[in-house]
Amino acid sequence: MNINDNIVALATPAGAGAIAVIRVSGPDAISIVAPLFKAKSKKDIAGEPTHTLHLGNIVDQQRVLDEVLVSVFHGPRSYTGENTIEISCHGSPYIQQEIIQLLVRKGCRSAEAGEFTLRSFLNGKMDLSQAEAVADLISSENQASHQLAMQQMRGGFSNEIKKLREELLNFASLIELELDFAEEDVEFANRDQFQELVLRIQKVLQKLVDSFSVGNVIKNGIPVAIVGEPNVGKSTLLNALLNEERAIVSEIAGTTRDTIEDEISIGGIGFRFIDTAGIRETEDVVESIGIKRTFEKISQAQVVIFLLDAGQFKAQSSRFKVEIEKIKNKFPQKPLLVIVNKVDRISKEELSKITESLTKGDGDVTLSGVERSILLPISAKTGTGVEELQQKLLQYVNTGELRNNNTIVTNSRHYNSLLKALEEINKVQEGLNTNLSGDLLAIDIRQTLYHFGEITGEITNDDLLGNIFANFCIGK
Amino acid sequence: MNINDNIVALATPAGAGAIAVIRVSGPDAISIVAPLFKAKSKKDIAGEPTHTLHLGNIVDQQRVLDEVLVSVFHGPRSYTGENTIEISCHGSPYIQQEIIQLLVRKGCRSAEAGEFTLRSFLNGKMDLSQAEAVADLISSENQASHQLAMQQMRGGFSNEIKKLREELLNFASLIELELDFAEEDVEFANRDQFQELVLRIQKVLQKLVDSFSVGNVIKNGIPVAIVGEPNVGKSTLLNALLNEERAIVSEIAGTTRDTIEDEISIGGIGFRFIDTAGIRETEDVVESIGIKRTFEKISQAQVVIFLLDAGQFKAQSSRFKVEIEKIKNKFPQKPLLVIVNKVDRISKEELSKITESLTKGDGDVTLSGVERSILLPISAKTGTGVEELQQKLLQYVNTGELRNNNTIVTNSRHYNSLLKALEEINKVQEGLNTNLSGDLLAIDIRQTLYHFGEITGEITNDDLLGNIFANFCIGK
Repeated sequence: MNINDNIVALATPAGAGAIAVIRVSGPDAISIVAPLFKAKSKKDIAGEPTHTLHLGNIVDQQRVLDEVLVSVFHGPRSYTGENTIEISCHGSPYIQQEIIQLLVRKGCRSAEAGEFTLRSFLNGKMDLSQAEAVADLISSENQASHQLAMQQMRGGFSNEIKKLREELLNFASLIELELDFAEEDVEFANRDQFQELVLRIQKVLQKLVDSFSVGNVIKNGIPVAIVGEPNVGKSTLLNALLNEERAIVSEIAGTTRDTIEDEISIGGIGFRFIDTAGIRETEDVVESIGIKRTFEKISQAQVVIFLLDAGQFKAQSSRFKVEIEKIKNKFPQKPLLVIVNKVDRISKEELSKITESLTKGDGDVTLSGVERSILLPISAKTGTGVEELQQKLLQYVNTGELRNNNTIVTNSRHYNSLLKALEEINKVQEGLNTNLSGDLLAIDIRQTLYHFGEITGEITNDDLLGNIFANFCIGK
Repeated sequence: MNINDNIVALATPAGAGAIAVIRVSGPDAISIVAPLFKAKSKKDIAGEPTHTLHLGNIVDQQRVLDEVLVSVFHGPRSYTGENTIEISCHGSPYIQQEIIQLLVRKGCRSAEAGEFTLRSFLNGKMDLSQAEAVADLISSENQASHQLAMQQMRGGFSNEIKKLREELLNFASLIELELDFAEEDVEFANRDQFQELVLRIQKVLQKLVDSFSVGNVIKNGIPVAIVGEPNVGKSTLLNALLNEERAIVSEIAGTTRDTIEDEISIGGIGFRFIDTAGIRETEDVVESIGIKRTFEKISQAQVVIFLLDAGQFKAQSSRFKVEIEKIKNKFPQKPLLVIVNKVDRISKEELSKITESLTKGDGDVTLSGVERSILLPISAKTGTGVEELQQKLLQYVNTGELRNNNTIVTNSRHYNSLLKALEEINKVQEGLNTNLSGDLLAIDIRQTLYHFGEITGEITNDDLLGNIFANFCIGK
């Protein structure tokens, strides 16, 4: 992996805007840009201190390409740890091209995806889990996933792992030293202290491993299946749920709405709404495939919404009840929200009848014990009940750990390494209990250390790094 | 127009990227951001010098929103001329929103389109024509339009206009002074010198007015009509012309190709290719409407390409000749390029026959005198003749003024003001020749001055400014 050359890339999103930022990093970043930049102040940026800003022109021979602001960073006080120049130019794609082309002609290489962050890692500015958090941070779409990414980027559990790793490394050395003096039967490593450390490590690892199920769901959004037929008001419901946040989102011009159509942020938590085809009983083969798919989607969801049209209830109540019963029987553990939509179209008396019909007798949707299933009358159109629905959805999410600012693992690579480390430390524990010989104990300890190192990047290889950074955007 | 408040906007294109830049400008820009920013160095940016960069966290109460780089600019040494902060954050739309929302809560107002540049103008950092050039610069898509916008942004003709305006203003004052002493019959303004100035102004204005036809065409792209039926290879031809530039364009990820499908940059000049339906003679009413439209498009074009398929020539040569003849007769002044495409599919002998058939006898496409029309065998597929075609197209563009770096007017608002100024200065000239009385002369001079002021913005009003800056993007 070559990090001795100089790389260049557009760091801001592609397209036209007020300004664009072009990043140059490498040992010669400053000396490459300096002769191409004519500062208004006549100063040569090659002689300017780090963290300074300079107004001037980027000039290709006689031709002025743009009036720009140049930021100068001296390594190691930069993002990559190398000398870095950021050129803030006018946001014309043509100008961006021209400047990047000029820099390439002057010896820079077009950076690959994530290469600036890769260099930051290779130059010791951040560990691997922090580098991975940068990508998570950029793709975070709500408060919860943003909080998790920030936590990880600022050290998160990798600091804890690093500390434990050092302590464990210390013991590993002592135990390996004992092996050199095997015939003298000395014990450099205090077994009681070691036992205590192993217990501590087990506890931390178990907590982190357990946090993954929460972390993963928060990072990817809580899956909610919506069961209901077309025209029952599914998209109106999503729009109603979206409404609260829409004002905020649309204040920034150009924010694409498409991506939020099925992922909605409620109270800072992302919910992924999964549309299903409904489960109406039928003899049609095609439709019964549809029902099978609906059940599959429900099984993947954490919450199920059964949406029905208040106006259709009278005529089809028995069908609705059969369908609700089916979901309850098939997924007895899954929270079920029965939502009666379009209540603005019916009278209070009619709504009472519907509620009664659904909650009493054989159609009862309230389970005994925990209130797992609830009935909620709403009008997606007028907004009635929408806030209550949002509150209910949030209740289903175990956000305790998030609220208490506990460390939560969200990355499946980390999860796998933590699982393996836990397995190995359990072996160490067993070894200690059974008075395993030092040489065998040392092997298990080394394996634990190996998996710790995988997380923070002390142990790594080009393939792994390639995989991780390929998911970054260019310019980061 | 309130410029005493503090404005905030995203300055980089919307969407996810490595980084995003949020701009804050106004008297309190620094004091609003300072308490929200915790610098790694523990320094308070409120006490830091202008043009410095600071790494740290943007913090909303206890919550860290992002690790950012903050640029500090003290007015008047900033783009807007006011205190300015640029926050370079991670390129997540969520983070952008959160930071902007935080700043709005702390008293900033969301900036309107072009408001940063408007402030720059109102604070005297640039004149109106320079401000207008900023928008042109951002939308420039090729070397020629980029060069024109840069020239205008760096002062261009507005410096010349400003100087002439001052000289003229001086004479105006002297002539108006004479009016105060009317009964004494004195002459403060030397009529010979004034005559000389008026001539100079006329010359400059005439040159600028004349440059508009070139400038307008260069800014908007040279319109080229392509006459030819479907499947004759129109899109392959455009792709072949595009090829040279494609390598450059596609190196920046995400550059949309759609916008260039009909606007192609050749040798730095933009060509706007206009597809027509062809002119095949027919009795069908719908098709004859198509032919009418084709002729309309040809009349708007500066160059016409008649594209025919070499393989179809044998069978349809007489039809082709009739159609070419029709274009020549209807548009005798318009350059016509007859292009025989798909020559890779025919033998050299066949090509000779086609050339002979088209250039000899009644089907002659070479006009006497200027070589207005030419015959060009190409293969869009293999690239044969494509470079020659590009050269031919460039020959039709009067780029002399551009190459000689002459000032060229591209903005129709400027053109209109220049035309009116020219009209008025001609009246002044006439008045001088006919010994018009000083009071009447003074009116014409004031009118000239008024139109000069319109260009540079000394004379302006809110409506005009509103119109101009509404075309900007937000954040500029």
